[in-house]
Amino acid sequence: MNLVSNYGTLPLSYTDEGNLLLLDQRKLPYKTEYFDATFFENVCIAIKDMIVRGAPSIGCVAAFGLAMEAIRLAEKHKQKEDFLLALDEACLVLQATRPTAVNLMNATNVIKDKAHFLATKNTKEIADQLMLEAKRYMQESIDVNKKLSDYGVELVPQNASILTHCNAGSIAACGWGTALGVMRSAQMAGKNIQAFVGETRPRQQGARLTMWELNQDEIPATLICDTMTGHFMKAKSIDMIVVGADRICANGDTANKIGTYNLAVLAKHHNIPFYVAAPLSTFDPDLESGDLIPIELRDQSEVTHIADLDNQVSVTIENAKAHNPAFDVTPASLIHAFITEAGILRPPFKDSIATLGLARALLDKPVV
Amino acid sequence: MNLVSNYGTLPLSYTDEGNLLLLDQRKLPYKTEYFDATFFENVCIAIKDMIVRGAPSIGCVAAFGLAMEAIRLAEKHKQKEDFLLALDEACLVLQATRPTAVNLMNATNVIKDKAHFLATKNTKEIADQLMLEAKRYMQESIDVNKKLSDYGVELVPQNASILTHCNAGSIAACGWGTALGVMRSAQMAGKNIQAFVGETRPRQQGARLTMWELNQDEIPATLICDTMTGHFMKAKSIDMIVVGADRICANGDTANKIGTYNLAVLAKHHNIPFYVAAPLSTFDPDLESGDLIPIELRDQSEVTHIADLDNQVSVTIENAKAHNPAFDVTPASLIHAFITEAGILRPPFKDSIATLGLARALLDKPVV
Repeated sequence: MNLVSNYGTLPLSYTDEGNLLLLDQRKLPYKTEYFDATFFENVCIAIKDMIVRGAPSIGCVAAFGLAMEAIRLAEKHKQKEDFLLALDEACLVLQATRPTAVNLMNATNVIKDKAHFLATKNTKEIADQLMLEAKRYMQESIDVNKKLSDYGVELVPQNASILTHCNAGSIAACGWGTALGVMRSAQMAGKNIQAFVGETRPRQQGARLTMWELNQDEIPATLICDTMTGHFMKAKSIDMIVVGADRICANGDTANKIGTYNLAVLAKHHNIPFYVAAPLSTFDPDLESGDLIPIELRDQSEVTHIADLDNQVSVTIENAKAHNPAFDVTPASLIHAFITEAGILRPPFKDSIATLGLARALLDKPVV
Repeated sequence: MNLVSNYGTLPLSYTDEGNLLLLDQRKLPYKTEYFDATFFENVCIAIKDMIVRGAPSIGCVAAFGLAMEAIRLAEKHKQKEDFLLALDEACLVLQATRPTAVNLMNATNVIKDKAHFLATKNTKEIADQLMLEAKRYMQESIDVNKKLSDYGVELVPQNASILTHCNAGSIAACGWGTALGVMRSAQMAGKNIQAFVGETRPRQQGARLTMWELNQDEIPATLICDTMTGHFMKAKSIDMIVVGADRICANGDTANKIGTYNLAVLAKHHNIPFYVAAPLSTFDPDLESGDLIPIELRDQSEVTHIADLDNQVSVTIENAKAHNPAFDVTPASLIHAFITEAGILRPPFKDSIATLGLARALLDKPVV
């Protein structure tokens, strides 16, 4: 099995035999292993346990998971109403797996709403259409990421040192990447860039995943601890910062991996441009501001321990109390621009985001 | 062997048999083990490898190491001039073990200069005096820390949540502690405090050592990752920040464990008071400003790996490039006050530090 594509390594593969295989991102970079998420329960486990992570990738996997469940439900329920009821329930179960990233909600709503809007009453026909929709959704994700990344190139100076956080690459954004996509597109456009990569405790997505993707792309990368970011900004080693996002509110407030907010404050202090690269499916026009975003609290063992494939290493005393918010919210005022497939959005974001005409369109009116 | 005292666990013990035993801080909190630093070479190894760490503790260990070496040199050299020449050389070797913390230089200069100033020509008598001086230096360290910590209590609000970084406790500051000393004194004074402890990658001194000391003192403590500090400041979970220091310049610019600068910038953004607790032996009146402080660069394997006693866990790809500055410099403008045994120093620090009359006194004119 190989998920390597022209758009970087993909997080998932839907096989001709109807199986959904996921690259197990918990095991990278130590081992390339695939997790069979063909069964609905396994899709939920894969999202909860971060076998697949990254807001857009979670969205794509959830779209496939729901479409595959629809095929099973169509065999069970020949009546459209029963089918839709069961599908709505499955949709809710999926949406409850992780609360912060909105792409999960958007992607599953696209599938679910399509089922409701389709004219046919044949549940098998509906399910087949939903599977096509999931495939289209994933292809669109790749195309969208490539497009937004190409838009981002204009923000990258020649010879730029770019700091990023967590992993917003191909495996996170389902093809090409968002923050890493901008780096990829900049490199292709002939800009001689190098990356600084923050480790991203507690789960080291920067150290494990971003370093791995950048190495594949032969973009020079230097790993630093999350404690070192300000030091290198002060030393003028960083020209710009670009990160991904898990949810962007109507006013531009942005939830992303814990530690993003630290970078945004530090960037402001050092007058370094701070960019967020994300597809429109990461925007949540229904949420007015960041204090309304639900922040997922994960198990404290992620903070008290560090693991590779074979070892679980404690970093502290036994029975230590720890807090583990998985995300933080960066206020719009600290963000210089959003890099999207609709172009670069500049402040005031309330206006530039409103101009996109996203409001409810993504959520309630999928193309029939 | 037990180094537990009324002033917390001490980093070293000089035994009646003339052995220097160090608590091996690399192995805490997993295991309590002692390292025999009786031989001069082992003193150097202990400082370089961070078996002992924390600026004041390094100073005390170096003072004992040089005094013990003086006893050996006195047996070899009966001529005072030869003895002093050899002692000066040993002093330089010790001072080269770690470049950033100035206490190492101050403590070894105190011992060395005392040898030069003593009237007697009997080298054994000189060496005996130096050993007494080392013991006095350590006792002074304990007294000084207790005194500065008690001064710090006035800065601690009732029911304060106090964020600290790295470890500035009894094992780092040789008795009671500096930043942790302030917490200890505040608790003794009846203030109902709790601590937030930043993990402090790459070597987890916050998670391993500060959590361990706070647990011994029964001060409630919550471990967070270095990525989470801004999030909890924004959430108003942090009332004040107090850290130790490795070197404080004439203008107040302060070198401390990497990550301190991030906290200082974040504190400013959130209007949270940021305090540095340190004895006068951490001040370097000869250095005008922070850009003159030599920053130690350590091996990149500390960043690419995390270790406990038995396992060495890689957090990234093989052959990853990494940077590993061990310290950063926080400009005086981000510091609200210094907590010292001479009282609380307020801005403008150039003036308040000058008032101490430290200049060259500590370095060149030890009491004969």
